[in-house]
Amino acid sequence: MSEQNVYFFGDGAAEGNGTMKDILGGKGAGLAEMTNAGVPVPPGFTISTQVCVHYYKHGGKLPAGFAEEQSAALSRLEASIGKKLGDPQNPLLVSVRSGAKFSMPGMMDTILNLGLNDQSVEGLARVSSNPRFAWDCYRRFVQMFSGVVFDMEKSEFEHVLAAMKKKRKAALDTDLTVADLKELKNQFDQIVQKRRGRRFPQDPLEQLELARDAVFRSWNSDRAIYYRRKERIADDLGTAVNIQAMVFGNLGATSATGVGFTRNPSTGENQFYGEYLITAQGEDVVAGVRTPEPIAHLERDMPEAYAQLFEITDRLEKHYRDVQDFEFTIQESKLYMLQTRNGKRTGAAAVKMAVDMLKEGLISEEEAVLRVQPEQLNQLLHRQIDPKAVIKVIARGLAASPGAAVGEAVFTADAAVLRAKAGHAVILVRNETVPDDIHGMDASQGILTATGGRTSHAAVVARGMGKCCVAGCGALEVDEKARRFKVGSHTVNEGDFITINGTTGEVVLGAVRTVEPELTGEFGEFMKLVDNHRRLKVRANADIPRDAIAARRFGAEGIGLCRTEHMFFDRARLPWVVQMILAAPEVKSLESRIHITTREIEKASGTKAATLRTELVSLKKAFKDPHKRYTQALAKLLPFQRSDFRGLFKAMEGYPVTIRTLDPPLHEFLPKREEILSSVSVAEAFASINMAAPKVKARLSRELAILKKRGKKKKLSVKDTSRIRLLETTLEKLAAAAESAHLQRRVEELHEFNPMLGHRGCRLGLTYPEITEMQARAIFLAAADLAKERRKIVPEIMIPLVGTVEEFRKQKEVVDRVAREVMVQTDQKLEYMVGTMIEIPRAALTAGAIAKEAEFFSFGTNDLTQLTYGYSRDDAGKFLPFYIQEKILPGDPFESMDQAGVGRLVEIAVKEGREARPHLKVGICGEHGGDPESVIFCHRSGLDYVSCSPYRVPLARLAAAHAALAERSVATSDQR
Amino acid sequence: MSEQNVYFFGDGAAEGNGTMKDILGGKGAGLAEMTNAGVPVPPGFTISTQVCVHYYKHGGKLPAGFAEEQSAALSRLEASIGKKLGDPQNPLLVSVRSGAKFSMPGMMDTILNLGLNDQSVEGLARVSSNPRFAWDCYRRFVQMFSGVVFDMEKSEFEHVLAAMKKKRKAALDTDLTVADLKELKNQFDQIVQKRRGRRFPQDPLEQLELARDAVFRSWNSDRAIYYRRKERIADDLGTAVNIQAMVFGNLGATSATGVGFTRNPSTGENQFYGEYLITAQGEDVVAGVRTPEPIAHLERDMPEAYAQLFEITDRLEKHYRDVQDFEFTIQESKLYMLQTRNGKRTGAAAVKMAVDMLKEGLISEEEAVLRVQPEQLNQLLHRQIDPKAVIKVIARGLAASPGAAVGEAVFTADAAVLRAKAGHAVILVRNETVPDDIHGMDASQGILTATGGRTSHAAVVARGMGKCCVAGCGALEVDEKARRFKVGSHTVNEGDFITINGTTGEVVLGAVRTVEPELTGEFGEFMKLVDNHRRLKVRANADIPRDAIAARRFGAEGIGLCRTEHMFFDRARLPWVVQMILAAPEVKSLESRIHITTREIEKASGTKAATLRTELVSLKKAFKDPHKRYTQALAKLLPFQRSDFRGLFKAMEGYPVTIRTLDPPLHEFLPKREEILSSVSVAEAFASINMAAPKVKARLSRELAILKKRGKKKKLSVKDTSRIRLLETTLEKLAAAAESAHLQRRVEELHEFNPMLGHRGCRLGLTYPEITEMQARAIFLAAADLAKERRKIVPEIMIPLVGTVEEFRKQKEVVDRVAREVMVQTDQKLEYMVGTMIEIPRAALTAGAIAKEAEFFSFGTNDLTQLTYGYSRDDAGKFLPFYIQEKILPGDPFESMDQAGVGRLVEIAVKEGREARPHLKVGICGEHGGDPESVIFCHRSGLDYVSCSPYRVPLARLAAAHAALAERSVATSDQR
Repeated sequence: MSEQNVYFFGDGAAEGNGTMKDILGGKGAGLAEMTNAGVPVPPGFTISTQVCVHYYKHGGKLPAGFAEEQSAALSRLEASIGKKLGDPQNPLLVSVRSGAKFSMPGMMDTILNLGLNDQSVEGLARVSSNPRFAWDCYRRFVQMFSGVVFDMEKSEFEHVLAAMKKKRKAALDTDLTVADLKELKNQFDQIVQKRRGRRFPQDPLEQLELARDAVFRSWNSDRAIYYRRKERIADDLGTAVNIQAMVFGNLGATSATGVGFTRNPSTGENQFYGEYLITAQGEDVVAGVRTPEPIAHLERDMPEAYAQLFEITDRLEKHYRDVQDFEFTIQESKLYMLQTRNGKRTGAAAVKMAVDMLKEGLISEEEAVLRVQPEQLNQLLHRQIDPKAVIKVIARGLAASPGAAVGEAVFTADAAVLRAKAGHAVILVRNETVPDDIHGMDASQGILTATGGRTSHAAVVARGMGKCCVAGCGALEVDEKARRFKVGSHTVNEGDFITINGTTGEVVLGAVRTVEPELTGEFGEFMKLVDNHRRLKVRANADIPRDAIAARRFGAEGIGLCRTEHMFFDRARLPWVVQMILAAPEVKSLESRIHITTREIEKASGTKAATLRTELVSLKKAFKDPHKRYTQALAKLLPFQRSDFRGLFKAMEGYPVTIRTLDPPLHEFLPKREEILSSVSVAEAFASINMAAPKVKARLSRELAILKKRGKKKKLSVKDTSRIRLLETTLEKLAAAAESAHLQRRVEELHEFNPMLGHRGCRLGLTYPEITEMQARAIFLAAADLAKERRKIVPEIMIPLVGTVEEFRKQKEVVDRVAREVMVQTDQKLEYMVGTMIEIPRAALTAGAIAKEAEFFSFGTNDLTQLTYGYSRDDAGKFLPFYIQEKILPGDPFESMDQAGVGRLVEIAVKEGREARPHLKVGICGEHGGDPESVIFCHRSGLDYVSCSPYRVPLARLAAAHAALAERSVATSDQR
Repeated sequence: MSEQNVYFFGDGAAEGNGTMKDILGGKGAGLAEMTNAGVPVPPGFTISTQVCVHYYKHGGKLPAGFAEEQSAALSRLEASIGKKLGDPQNPLLVSVRSGAKFSMPGMMDTILNLGLNDQSVEGLARVSSNPRFAWDCYRRFVQMFSGVVFDMEKSEFEHVLAAMKKKRKAALDTDLTVADLKELKNQFDQIVQKRRGRRFPQDPLEQLELARDAVFRSWNSDRAIYYRRKERIADDLGTAVNIQAMVFGNLGATSATGVGFTRNPSTGENQFYGEYLITAQGEDVVAGVRTPEPIAHLERDMPEAYAQLFEITDRLEKHYRDVQDFEFTIQESKLYMLQTRNGKRTGAAAVKMAVDMLKEGLISEEEAVLRVQPEQLNQLLHRQIDPKAVIKVIARGLAASPGAAVGEAVFTADAAVLRAKAGHAVILVRNETVPDDIHGMDASQGILTATGGRTSHAAVVARGMGKCCVAGCGALEVDEKARRFKVGSHTVNEGDFITINGTTGEVVLGAVRTVEPELTGEFGEFMKLVDNHRRLKVRANADIPRDAIAARRFGAEGIGLCRTEHMFFDRARLPWVVQMILAAPEVKSLESRIHITTREIEKASGTKAATLRTELVSLKKAFKDPHKRYTQALAKLLPFQRSDFRGLFKAMEGYPVTIRTLDPPLHEFLPKREEILSSVSVAEAFASINMAAPKVKARLSRELAILKKRGKKKKLSVKDTSRIRLLETTLEKLAAAAESAHLQRRVEELHEFNPMLGHRGCRLGLTYPEITEMQARAIFLAAADLAKERRKIVPEIMIPLVGTVEEFRKQKEVVDRVAREVMVQTDQKLEYMVGTMIEIPRAALTAGAIAKEAEFFSFGTNDLTQLTYGYSRDDAGKFLPFYIQEKILPGDPFESMDQAGVGRLVEIAVKEGREARPHLKVGICGEHGGDPESVIFCHRSGLDYVSCSPYRVPLARLAAAHAALAERSVATSDQR
């Protein structure tokens, strides 16, 4: 342990330096570093963290010799600045600030303007030529000091202040006179006397000691302890205390204050950038009362200070090898740097700066890649509201899918399609979207919903489509029937223009100008650097050729997930899908009964066998019709799917394409149960058809036939003719009722209590292998089409929701058989792989067995997260926001992967899968594939690729490079 | 490898013995063992498995010298029996049977009566004095031989046989004459000639060789390979072939055949038991054409044979040290034992035999415990249908909860309660039961449902209550409104008696006599033995004192799961539960808004602060009413729960009682959404209340007030009086409509897409901590009540559905705080533990972190299985039966624990939980706690206890003993 307790900085040199965060804290080390770099920093000294540790260890006592050290440092500070603490003529004022090794923003205390007392305040009033300012400083100092040191309620002082303002009819603090402030100060003194039984300390040295110890104590305040616990910062580190001379930019025309950047933080251009105000204090620049001047004007106002500032900040940028965000004050022509730090920047600026600094030789390629955070790219990849536009924000929802969109508000999917066809840009506004709305979402520029979170249907589908979406905008009152929404006093009717910003969640009235993203230039250069450094491949989730083409543009190296069910919702196909669903269970039930009866006949003899044979005949007869409808529906769907896949394959030529067989429960393709339940007419039809219809139908048909026959022989009476018309409509109605009753019965049969855990995924493929077969056939026929054109494509067929190896094996048998058949039929040799989603915990836990059969794994982390936590994404809105707010969860596990639970299953599956099949290909295709933190986890876990929505591909590429670089830096430091 | 290929047995000695299953197969070793034991077994020889292996290795060739060995063995056999193979006068007939090391029942081929040809059949006809029998044997031999050896379709012979019977107008095979059979034999010969181009072999030696090789080939038949794969039997073991002399019990009055047991297999009594027939073949005894004689009569008919049989079987019982199930044939006064094996027995017999044999010194205590299978105890623990009763079974459902019950059919829970109160025994018949039916189930003797599986609501609750239940009886058409069910031609109306058998799934018309189980006597003695050998503790799942008392009677050592929500469904409490649910979200939402506004006021000033203060006042005003309703409801529920827990604690004095805090989603306590959706009147009320009600209500109230005021001054007109009445009823209706609209809104708000994954378990306790608090208070107050009476009880409070340690920590804080408060309030020191269910995969995967906070784990394997597989128990009926039938799953994972997936999570959690907290108490409280295989797994995984429904406690105790004994035997064999 060092013997030194106090570290001076000033006059061009510091006793400490930037590496000494352990004992100087972050702030102290930064001040020392700047001072050493020759930057003019207001001088001061840092009391080390060791003193704080000693303070706690010895019940508030300070180390031997400390008092002398502090006294010496203070003298040196006074000499450096040419003022003395407590001098009634020209007092030195200091700030007392905490500063721990790890940043704990706002957790500990700060005291400004220390050194003021009843005498020195008059001196400050004279040198500043501003008695109001001096007395306001004093008033604030008393308040701040009493709050921190004497642990007094701030509100007590505030009440006195408020009363004074009321008395003086003053709207603002600044409307109070010096006399008012003096009276206030007296009242404050009285409060301190009353509450703490002592006078407010007038001795500046006593002030300093009390303030220092209060900072030490603030290390163990409840909120600081709580913060450390959460951030896993050790409790025994202690805080340093920085005591620094205060400087003022408001001491006349030769004083000024300002802020700036060494490069433009919006565009990244290498131009000196900032603002300043003459005769002003730091907060005036940002307060907006006076309009600050652009920094270039400083060259005219104070050429020497400007030149020095430019030189210093340029040096700081080189020293820290990054753009600097600095604050400065010029006090009576003398420049002081108050702070410098790496500057925040927009995504565009980050990319440009990284590329420029690499070219300038300032940073290495690795550093350039690390300079841009993946999420920053988000801003670059989507259409944005023109930053110059003046906008009227009428509501804010969740930023559910980034980008901006302008269009006429529409309130139904059908209206969206109609208006879009007529050439209008539209925004689909709904309370919430459902799978049925897909065609309307597709036709819209963007989607706005009143309910649902970032993982609601609207949000997920919009992100998949790369469309902008604002979800869960609770302020909206959407009336879908009346075709309007209200928000506050605004009403937006169908056809009115609105603009939505999915990057910020804003809803804007009217059509606002937007600008296109730029994927070339520096962005293109940067992404090339990125690709030099990553191991992980990046694919896209895409269901249709248009998305696949977008994905390629963003650098996707294949399709990681094609959800075939999205193809089923298309209007031209849905009727066949419904026909398939209505027929399938009948077919299966009859198939099974035919099978059983056939076997029974083999065993039976005599009259029993005869009865069974009759039954078999009637079963086979009953089987014909549904079987025809089932196979017809599948046959109709086959060419649709074949052409879908051909399009996808062409767009992804040369890259792998992973196609998932049908996944969602069948009831998703039928009308909602609620609608049917509440539809009285259907219920009535159902009842009537069940009770009397068959007989009635037969009688009416007979009558109709007789009348028609009669009509052929002679001209019918008016009565007969109208009777025919009546009979015909009645029979039509009966037929329609029968059909809707059938539909309703099926919806009831398919209803599930927990559809997420129900009859879906490969469970469908196993009970209805003909569906898997049709899809596999479409895939292989499409692949054969390409093979004939000598295009290379390797389909990867993915079986969803596998929980046992046996499920996979049986589905793979179907796929392999169809592959053989198509190869013979088309005379083409086709390469393909069959693998599985790992999205059921049991699949991860038995991955070794599954990998013996499966050629690849793709983690479906959406479902895996639902099952590992036991959360339904559709329902978790009831408690998840509360959980996140109360820190029961660190964040939304559907946004960033839970590594302790879900991640552990991923690791188990990768390890045991590769043990069983060393070259097992492993990827991820859940929403997490586009989340940078999760991508880094995937890299570390040894995955081969991640797959995400097309618009997140560049983010994933960058995150993958960051992961690889982080690994390399760990490896390098291990070698040391 | 042995040089010997053929092993002779007969004449009191065998070349092999019982330990040589590897080379003789199971059957061959058994025959050798019996022969060596001096038992008269028809002689024969076994061709070793090595010959079969050689046959496959060398493309159908046999080892050198084999022919000579076989020939020698055959000669020895002929000498032993005194007949020659193919002798036209008195032929030796043999059977040729497969016999592998591990039993593969029915998978390989068998040929009987080998040695018959056109000559020897006449000889057999003569010696048997039964030409029809001889020719029928020959006809069957040809059929069997041709099927096995020539791989011919059996149906081809069957058709010829059927045609012959038709021609002769014969109903049965036995109606055919000798001439018919001879003609048949000729036709069979022609079929063989036609299909295989050869004559049916007449040379008995050729027959033997062909048969032997066919048996070898049947080792690799498709079905045998399939069977081995499933049973994990190696493919290269091969099968032995047993060639044994046939004996006939139908060669006149000195011949007989019979079967028997060395003890009574129904009761276990030590009495010689069996039946026989003179002049008969084996199948005649079981065919039921002639009525067999009780074995005691054999002593009269054939005293010598009887004495020999008695002596032999007694010796066999001692030799095998278990009850023997034997078959014998007496051929011309000579006794032959054809088979002996350990006898199957009823549960009662198994218990009695084990206890008796231990007393007789025949077996050790460990063996006695192992002699009874846990599931066998099931029969002993429930009321049974009197075995002597004649019953009319009208339908069969799933045996969902064992036992028998008699009562009048009722079709609603309320009807069940009413009739039960009137002193009637009732059976509740429903399509399916819902939580609302609990009181009706409780009042019934048993439950019968038309839908739902073994894990349906009815089944689970019935098992918990120890009531018998037949579920999923699909043949029933239940019309709950009409109060009747139909099944086939039977109609059962409310009040008609039925009997159900939950052990078999039978539904019986009328009231049948039932008998009580006996828990004392040998059963009691046996369970004492069991308890000497187990390590695992066994607790019961019990929610009410009555169940707890039953559990104690069955030997439970505590309560492993008390589901507090079952208490909530009680009629007296449900209104308060509903009031709590209706008020809770309002309270929470207002609480949060008050909190936010208070904080905003602290920061705000001026007019904004004033506005906020006004808002705060109105929020606090709005808060009052729902808060009052919420706290009132909780206060009303507290004493109910306190008295529930006091009762449970008293019943379980001295043992631990685990109480789970509220678990199910709140909507389970409200009316069903479907009911509300389809209820038009409520929907109308809802609409009217929403649109016009507030204004209308105000106007009507005003008018009413005016009229009433007027009425105080003077007598009102008739018109006014009736107007008052109208206004009053209208206002009442409006109030009722408002209330039902509120209810409906709440039901809508609480609706979940996947309730299993929704807002339930500790997620409720966290959002509504007052509920957890109320329950904890009730528990501790009850514990304090007992403490005052100096009764010892240690409540274990269990937090359900924990997925993150933070959830648990926050709930534990509530429990600990309430515990401190109650201890101060009652001045009693209370011991207690706080632990968690492990039922979410993530909880198992992060068990180390959770165990740092939790004092015990209890695996909720029902939910853990649902989540690990991604199955909803309520919906899995759509595919689970198919999965089990198609062997995609080895069985229902909700019945027996899936060890590869769910079990792995259990093991991870136990290991990592104990690493974090070495003395962590670990148990299981899912349905698996009563499944013997799962109990064994729990023992192996190091659990401290299992908990199951009271009626399964003895099973679990026995399974636990079996597990401990199995472990000991492994440990012993490891030491060798």
